[in-house]
Formats: sequence, C-alpha cells, structure tokens
Amino acid sequence: MRTVLIGNTRTEEMVGDLTALSEQSREAAGHGAHRLLWWAREGDVLVLPTLPDEAFADYVTALTGTPRGSFTVLAPAPGRLGSGLLTPDRLADPALEDALREALHGPGEHGRTAAPTGLRITPVYPDATVADLARRLGAEAALPGWAFHAQGGSALVNSKAAFRAVAAGAGVPIARGTVVNDRGEAVRAIATLLDEGHCAIAKREFGGGGLGNEILTPAPGVEPAGAPRAVLLPDGPAIDAYVADRWPWLTEGGRHRLVVEQYHVGAVPVYAEFVVADDRVDLTGTGEMLTDPVVVGEIVPASARLTGEATAELTAVGRHLCEAYRALGYRGTISADAYVTVRGEIRFCEANGRITGSTHLHTAMAGRLLDPAVRRRRVLLGGECAAPPFPATAAALEEAGLGFDPASGTGVVLVNAFGPLTGAVMYCVIADDVTGARARQAELVPLLAKAAS
Amino acid sequence: MRTVLIGNTRTEEMVGDLTALSEQSREAAGHGAHRLLWWAREGDVLVLPTLPDEAFADYVTALTGTPRGSFTVLAPAPGRLGSGLLTPDRLADPALEDALREALHGPGEHGRTAAPTGLRITPVYPDATVADLARRLGAEAALPGWAFHAQGGSALVNSKAAFRAVAAGAGVPIARGTVVNDRGEAVRAIATLLDEGHCAIAKREFGGGGLGNEILTPAPGVEPAGAPRAVLLPDGPAIDAYVADRWPWLTEGGRHRLVVEQYHVGAVPVYAEFVVADDRVDLTGTGEMLTDPVVVGEIVPASARLTGEATAELTAVGRHLCEAYRALGYRGTISADAYVTVRGEIRFCEANGRITGSTHLHTAMAGRLLDPAVRRRRVLLGGECAAPPFPATAAALEEAGLGFDPASGTGVVLVNAFGPLTGAVMYCVIADDVTGARARQAELVPLLAKAAS
Repeated sequence: MRTVLIGNTRTEEMVGDLTALSEQSREAAGHGAHRLLWWAREGDVLVLPTLPDEAFADYVTALTGTPRGSFTVLAPAPGRLGSGLLTPDRLADPALEDALREALHGPGEHGRTAAPTGLRITPVYPDATVADLARRLGAEAALPGWAFHAQGGSALVNSKAAFRAVAAGAGVPIARGTVVNDRGEAVRAIATLLDEGHCAIAKREFGGGGLGNEILTPAPGVEPAGAPRAVLLPDGPAIDAYVADRWPWLTEGGRHRLVVEQYHVGAVPVYAEFVVADDRVDLTGTGEMLTDPVVVGEIVPASARLTGEATAELTAVGRHLCEAYRALGYRGTISADAYVTVRGEIRFCEANGRITGSTHLHTAMAGRLLDPAVRRRRVLLGGECAAPPFPATAAALEEAGLGFDPASGTGVVLVNAFGPLTGAVMYCVIADDVTGARARQAELVPLLAKAAS
Repeated sequence: MRTVLIGNTRTEEMVGDLTALSEQSREAAGHGAHRLLWWAREGDVLVLPTLPDEAFADYVTALTGTPRGSFTVLAPAPGRLGSGLLTPDRLADPALEDALREALHGPGEHGRTAAPTGLRITPVYPDATVADLARRLGAEAALPGWAFHAQGGSALVNSKAAFRAVAAGAGVPIARGTVVNDRGEAVRAIATLLDEGHCAIAKREFGGGGLGNEILTPAPGVEPAGAPRAVLLPDGPAIDAYVADRWPWLTEGGRHRLVVEQYHVGAVPVYAEFVVADDRVDLTGTGEMLTDPVVVGEIVPASARLTGEATAELTAVGRHLCEAYRALGYRGTISADAYVTVRGEIRFCEANGRITGSTHLHTAMAGRLLDPAVRRRRVLLGGECAAPPFPATAAALEEAGLGFDPASGTGVVLVNAFGPLTGAVMYCVIADDVTGARARQAELVPLLAKAAS
C-alpha cells in the first residue's frame, strides 16, 4: 500500500478564521505538518506546506527505518496566506495535481489516470478540498468516506455545536448546556447556569486547544483550565455586558454558533482516539491532556492516572460516539474528548475528526518506535519547550544522554523541527511511568532553554 | 392526549436572517401560523404569533368539528421583531410560561409543576428555544427528541450543506456538486459544472421555497424553476465576477456555507413527508411542488403525475434518508425533497425538519376533512391568490358554490386568513383528479381577484 499524506494542519473548521492566525502560528503550523514524516513509508508521497529541514528528516527516518530516499515530499507554491498552511487554493493548484500524478505514476503521466491499486489518501483534515483533489486524481476510492467528505461532512464532526446534538442523540453524556444562535439566547443560557452557582464555559463552534473557550464564573477564585481565561460575572448586568462585548469574538463576527455549557472546576481532561472504518471502529489510544491554562501537552495512556473503571468507560462511550459518526458517513481518525469530574463522572465535550495533536504519540511514537511488548509498559509525555535551532537541539539532547534509545525503549524524541519565529520544539518523553517521564522532562526543559539562550 | 402547538413558522434556520424579512413577510408568517388551528383538538393549547381572526377560527372549527371554545390560543407579547414571528425572545417570555402553565394546570399554577401525562409539544420548528420552553414547563418528555433539539440538532437537518453530507453518508442519490466555505472553492465548484456544459444551482445553507437559490447557466435560454432567477455565466471571468459580487448574499455576509450543485433543467420537484418517531418512520404523504419560478403551490399526492415506480422510489429512498436522521436523534416531521429528471432519475436535494408548507394538506385537509375511503380517490391542489379580506373571501366562495362540501369531499378550503399587507389567501382545492382541481382553480382565482379589486 502507498499513501498520500496531506499536511493540512490548519483549516477553518479546526481553528476558525485562518486570516486571524499570526505569522508565528502559521510558521508553527507548517512545521507541525512535518510530523507526517513519522508516518512515511516506502513509496509514500507527502504533501506538506513547506519542505522539511533535511536534518530533521534524517533524524526521523533514522528512527523509523524508512529510507529518506524511498518517499517523495511535495510542497505546492505558496497560497493566499503564504506558505505555512496548506490552504484550499494550494491544494487546488493544478501544478500539485501534476506533481502528484508524476509521483504516483512516473514522469509524463499528466493525463487523468486511474489511481494505483492499494493507494490510500490520508489527510490531517479530510474536508471537501481534499476530496476534490482525490477526485481529480481519479482516486476517490483511496480516501475512506470520500462521498461524505466531498460534501463537507467533516464540519459536522468538528463543530462543537454539532457535537452536542450528535452526542445527545446517541445518548452520550455531555455537560448541561446548549447551543445558541443569538445574544439573547446566550445571556439566558449563561444565566441559567450561573444563577444556580455553577461555572459555565463559552466555546466557539470551531477551535482547538481550548483557545476558543472562555470560562465564566459567578464568584472569584476559579483558575482557568482548558481556556485562556476565567471571567467573573457576578450578576445579570455583568452577563449582559459580557455577551454584548464578546459576541463578535465568540461567534467570529456572527459566522458561527456558540456553545454554552456547565464548566466543572478541577475536572481532568482526557480523550480516547479511534479510527473509524467502513465496518468497525478501532481504538488508537487514550491520553490525558495537560493544560496551563490551554492545552500544553498530554500523558499517554490515560490509564497512567485514571482508574481502570474510568478508562474503560472513556473508551466504551467514546467508541459509541464514534459509531454515531460512522453511521453518519465519517471515515478517519476521531478523538472523543471528555473529562472526569471531581465526583468521578465522565462527560464528553467535543469530537475532533482529524489527525490530532496527539495522534503521532499513538501511531508513530508508540506504534513505530516501541516494540508491542514494551509499549504496554511505557508512558509517553508530550510537550513543547523553548529550544535552539533543530540541529543544536538534537545535539544537546545526545550530549546529555537524553535522546531516545531504541534498545531500552526510553528517552526523548524530538517530534518537530521548527522555524525562527517559533523557537520551541515539540518533544515526547518515553519512560517507564509518569514519575520517570516527569523527571526526564525536568532535565530536558532547562537544558534546551539554556542552549537556546 | 393534549398538545401544545407552537407556531414558530419562521426561524433563522428556515429562512436565514429574520431581520431581512419585509414587514409583509412577517405579517404573512403570522397568518401562516394560524394554520395550526387545523390541528387543534379539545384541550389543546396553541401558541401563535398573533391571535387569529375569530371569523377564520370559526370557519376552521366548523370544518374540523373541534369546538372553538374547547382549546386555548395564546399569543405572547410582541418581541424584538414585532408580532408576526414567534422569535426566541417571545418564546422565552416568563409571562408565556405562566400562561401555558395556567392553561395546562388551571389558574394559580405558576410554580414549576410536572407536565400533565399524555402531553405532547408540537412546534412548527423544533429548535433549542422550544426545547428550553419544554424544560421550563417540566415537559421534556412531551417533546419527542428533546435531548437532540435542546442542542440545536434541527440545524443539522435543515442545513442544505449538512443535508448533502448526511445524504452522501447514507447513500441517498444527490446531484453532483459540493459544499464550499470560501470564494475560491465556489468559483472552482461552479466552473467544474459549467465547463462541462451543465447548469448549476447555488443554494444558501438556510432558506425556503427556493428563495435562497440562484441558477447559473453556461448558455442563454434557461427558464428558472426553483429559484428567483437564472444567471448567465458564459466563461471563467463571468464566474469570478458573479462570486465576487454575490458571495455576501449567498452566504448571508459570510455567516453560512454555500451549496453548489448540478441543476437539472426540466426536472419535476417532488417530496415525501414523514414523521420520525423513536422506533419508526411513518409516511405522511407525497406531493409535487409547483414553481413559478419559486414554489407557489403543490399537488398531492405525487402519484397524481409520477409513475408508480418513481413514487415508490421517492418514498423508499426518502424513508431511508429519514432513518439516517432518526439514527442521529431527530424526532418530528421531515420532508425529503427531491426531483425527477427528464431522464427519469430521482435526485434528493434537501431535507426540511419541520412542519412544512405542505404538512397541512396531508395531516389536516386530507387527514381531517376526508374520509379514509374517499381520501385515496382525491387530489389536493395547494396555492395562493389575491383575495379580499377573509369574511368576504369566504362569502364569495360560498356564493359561487366553490366551497368545500363535506358530503362529496370536494371543493375549495381556505387555509389561512391574512392581513392587509398580504392581500392573498392560501387555498386548497380538493377534486377527483388533477384536471378537475385545475378547473376549479381556474374558476377560483379570477373570482377572488375580482372580489379583491
């Protein structure tokens, strides 16, 4: 099987208005897409926003064992938002179509040709743009769920508003709350929760990492987790003023709906990730998300800190949710996000129908770098920290003896290279347990900070 | 069983931006809601935007046999858009909640009380606002699909964009095309169809009656049907200019997605309407929509002019589509809209999850005015024409001997009263066949035009 991997790591349905992303965010998105190198196998074609650092590519392929020369990397010409993002205009570029055909069929194959048998198309985000590229390549069958994705179905899976309806319809437990269309409904929905003494969370319909959320509290003293800030709204006039002021931000200028739901202070955010296929739903892995105050990392598996009972419920109900999306026609990766309240209840809070910021931990780090027998006895800790340019980061790691050791199946893996605006590396610490991973992280972070300064 | 019928005949998810509706449209919507009188039975409570004409109420109840004094009609205080529409602010009015409680439980019952057993809540449009009213009445169980509707699930059923994904996922045949998020994708989607010599239709995500559609043609001579106009786009620059000019209108200022699909010239628009219950999907009826150029009426049943084979396919595939929405959690009425191409193929084009502009033909006119044995031998022709104020319209009808005769099960039923801005009545001609219905219509329309002048 050959795979076309498409690094569209930012779409409007993932993060909202793309033109609002800073130059740094776009650069980071481009390097985030280079993570697809971890998936590359012989004969594959990677479509990335920018070409990766060769030093980084060599680093990855040395660990995965896939020869660097055995797969093709393509980056289409920059688009309307530059080169950090694989925007729809870039994926529609006829020159990309030609280059893909040539990579798949050999030089001169510019006419429409049936796709090679056994071809698979795996985008980070399976939207109508990707489906149209598949169509132009004659490769509809290579993209699972093509018919659904060709009609923008991914929006139904990634919308936090649609999530609440699908989950409610499937009987999946969600937080109290609703989806609102106008300011009056927003005020009423917030007041309903705050009047009873609960905290609320307002969530943009499309967003990631908690960046589109705000926590609303009736009393002071709530530390935000899963949102950049907590806003004190002690009474009705404060709620009115908040909605009047923030409605444009919360709805991206009236473009989307808004979710208002109960916020559970002290809850532990977790997820179960699945691959939804035609005839089944397969668990990829589970994890706990680390927030400060938005998502900054994760611990894999979730059972490293949850009870066995809670982990079992997380995966069983997460699978049930994915079955609802399977019935709807979605195919591909879904992360079912949830949290465990201080009372031990699990509430589901969103679905992400895409390769997420955690998928590489399961599929690449655990899946390719660890022997199955070893894997069950390892904890992975993902994070990001300040670091010097890539080769210096890799060198500092090796020198300190912190790098990943395939023999023991422990150590630090550098997930990404990065650009000058970012100045930070994504890492994955692999250790025997959470304590060991935290200890290794406590060595790593100051080491790289020092090397970067 | 007692039913609370809620006449929210216009919501943003039905027709787009409510503030864009003219004063006349709002008046007409208010009178459209009076159609719920046709459903009223003893003990029911009707929540309407405005109180109906008593002359019209008497006319309806004389035909249905439900005594006028045996049910309650409530109209909450006018809201931010006046009195023609049951907007969310009006349904949230605490005074309405009190009045409903009193109507259901008797005077003085203002505290939260469990809803009477056997209560049913039937809104025209089952959205989160209606679900919240049900919750405040302690009557969640009275609104089928409450959990789904409370999370704004109706948007997933009524969005023309979501429809394409759900239909594609369920294997329901739809026209070629896609859902687009930005101008560039719109240009590409339109050009893909027009370059092959096809016509296209651009559809706003939320709209009704064809008013949110535009037909796009590569060559002159196409008469619009199902949209207010056809736009000639002979080449790429014309497509670019069209999208640049119309994008704000097509997306309501960037608020919604846009559907672009193939338009089949000469196709016959039809529908099959169902009630989706917890455990089954029941056919309510079928019909053909009449356009000039937007929807102006319908003929019931669809088999009056379709072949038996086409009718069977319409109902079987329509039911399959409704099963997909049932799996998603929707409960209530769905009209599965489709058309039959000149080649005899059926393509589905949208779903309407609400009491539609045709429901009364099936449930009230055929369901309450005709004996089951007679019903199968009747054709219903729905339409609208200029008319004098209601009592004069009814009098003119009687005088000409055109009124509905319960004994024969034929004649003209006046569906609505209407206001001074509208000056037009909705009617339903019931006859032995299409020819007979057309003949009666040809007498009716000039008669009322003359009476109105």
